[in-house]
Amino acid sequence: MHILILGAAGMLGRKLAAAITGGALPFSRLTLADVVAPPPVDGAATLALNLADPGAAAILVKDRPDLIFHLAAVVSGEAEVDLARGYAVNLDASRALFDAIAAIPGYCPRLVFASSLAVFGAPFPKVIPDDFHLTPRTSYGTQKAMTELLLSDYSRRGLLDGIALRLPTICIRPGAPNRAASGFYSSILREPLNGLPAVLPVRDSLRHWFASPRAATGFFLRAASLDTATLTASRALTMPGLSASIAEMIEALRRVAGQAAVDLIRHEPDPVIEAIVTPWAEACEAATARSLGFVAETSFDEIIRIYLEDDHPSRSI
Amino acid sequence: MHILILGAAGMLGRKLAAAITGGALPFSRLTLADVVAPPPVDGAATLALNLADPGAAAILVKDRPDLIFHLAAVVSGEAEVDLARGYAVNLDASRALFDAIAAIPGYCPRLVFASSLAVFGAPFPKVIPDDFHLTPRTSYGTQKAMTELLLSDYSRRGLLDGIALRLPTICIRPGAPNRAASGFYSSILREPLNGLPAVLPVRDSLRHWFASPRAATGFFLRAASLDTATLTASRALTMPGLSASIAEMIEALRRVAGQAAVDLIRHEPDPVIEAIVTPWAEACEAATARSLGFVAETSFDEIIRIYLEDDHPSRSI
Repeated sequence: MHILILGAAGMLGRKLAAAITGGALPFSRLTLADVVAPPPVDGAATLALNLADPGAAAILVKDRPDLIFHLAAVVSGEAEVDLARGYAVNLDASRALFDAIAAIPGYCPRLVFASSLAVFGAPFPKVIPDDFHLTPRTSYGTQKAMTELLLSDYSRRGLLDGIALRLPTICIRPGAPNRAASGFYSSILREPLNGLPAVLPVRDSLRHWFASPRAATGFFLRAASLDTATLTASRALTMPGLSASIAEMIEALRRVAGQAAVDLIRHEPDPVIEAIVTPWAEACEAATARSLGFVAETSFDEIIRIYLEDDHPSRSI
Repeated sequence: MHILILGAAGMLGRKLAAAITGGALPFSRLTLADVVAPPPVDGAATLALNLADPGAAAILVKDRPDLIFHLAAVVSGEAEVDLARGYAVNLDASRALFDAIAAIPGYCPRLVFASSLAVFGAPFPKVIPDDFHLTPRTSYGTQKAMTELLLSDYSRRGLLDGIALRLPTICIRPGAPNRAASGFYSSILREPLNGLPAVLPVRDSLRHWFASPRAATGFFLRAASLDTATLTASRALTMPGLSASIAEMIEALRRVAGQAAVDLIRHEPDPVIEAIVTPWAEACEAATARSLGFVAETSFDEIIRIYLEDDHPSRSI
């Protein structure tokens, strides 16, 4: 099997590539592509190419990869600030990829697309059902919703075999913050676990929907072999996750890493960030995805332990 | 007020133009645009221009119309047959229009967009609620749903002031059939009312959701002056209509035009058409639109009488 990962230099792309080369999926060829060359991985080819550039999509699919993971995107904060760039990357580049696939006669690869809970918009019920309506409140969410619709239409027409995964907020992200407004959800745990101070910009009663990077990798791997014949109405699946308040996250931190870690968190309210994240989803039903074998964590202690096992700086020392 | 109608040569565009020049809306300037020059109307300028052509959108908005009715589209049957053309006209041309508006600083016109019930997909409840999820089962429906999402995002960002109207199947359409699969819904009434034979290609127990061309014109006029401040989650409104089975439509025809008219209908099953229209919506709640003053017919007798008053060939003899 020939596998292509787009957005392979990103956090989830790198973890997915590592899982695949580690044996999670059989492959004869693995290509890792991103706007900057992804870090080298044994057994994989790397490619620096901007999917948004004319002709790039055709180059990426000309050798007909059987399985394509499409994780390339501009994050929510950037898509909100730069309207043109957000639509160019998050919508147009995806469409160029779909059209390049459709242009090859008889070619119908499995395409797993990283979508987002941001396709949904407030007001929310306590638990969002799988068939909740699409009323995104950000340009990022709009672009993901539009791409989901396109993916479903092209799949219905037999031009590709797509699945869109609506990912929870991924936590704990390793490394430096990106421009996503959700960044603090990782940093308030990651920095104390690394012995560093952290800033909590919002009230700790806020509740949100999470999964670990390891769970997200598992979602992509599960989607690779899913029987899509059962996905008739839409190819978009809301992924399972864990509903937790910030106070619960901090209690888990206390249990796993002690009061000293918790003491490193300083509450510095930022009304701008609080306004952005307050209307976010508290929990999702994810009934269809659960029934199809997608699995997430069931406690924040587990999410923290996964960070310590997979990404804590001490691992590489 | 400067008003622009795109798709002004189409059936609804012509009726809307006639209503406006007849006094339904005050205007200082009225421009009627379409790919072919719309029929001349007293007091209006006409323009033959393809919105899908590069630069066309900028030409259309350069004089900053205050109110834009965007009815330009490729119909469902054609969008299903010609993938590229459907996306080019129904999605890209709309986006070019929105972007041309957004490119003019300080310009934020009211933009009323003709969307469709086709944004929804089976399986349906008996009555589709306003917040039903978007799972279109046609490329046409996908293109309309994607454009709705774009319209909502651009409106949220203050780049334009959009409203998308999800129109019922418009019945009785005057004139010749277009390539919409729903064409027979009009022709089984129109042809007998005109003394001509008609073919019913599906079983008469099928139920669907209708409004007259006059009601549709009323929807556009209502949307022109609506206070959009209340439309927070989405700028798309499902329009009210009348739920009727084909048997009920034929009974109304019998009441209004007699058995002789009904006898002109011949049942010739067409499995292709039946397969297309069988999963269509039976009824919509349209609660939000009704509360905002959008009004449709309440009986098929009324829909038939409107045809006789507005469009029957005897009117122009």
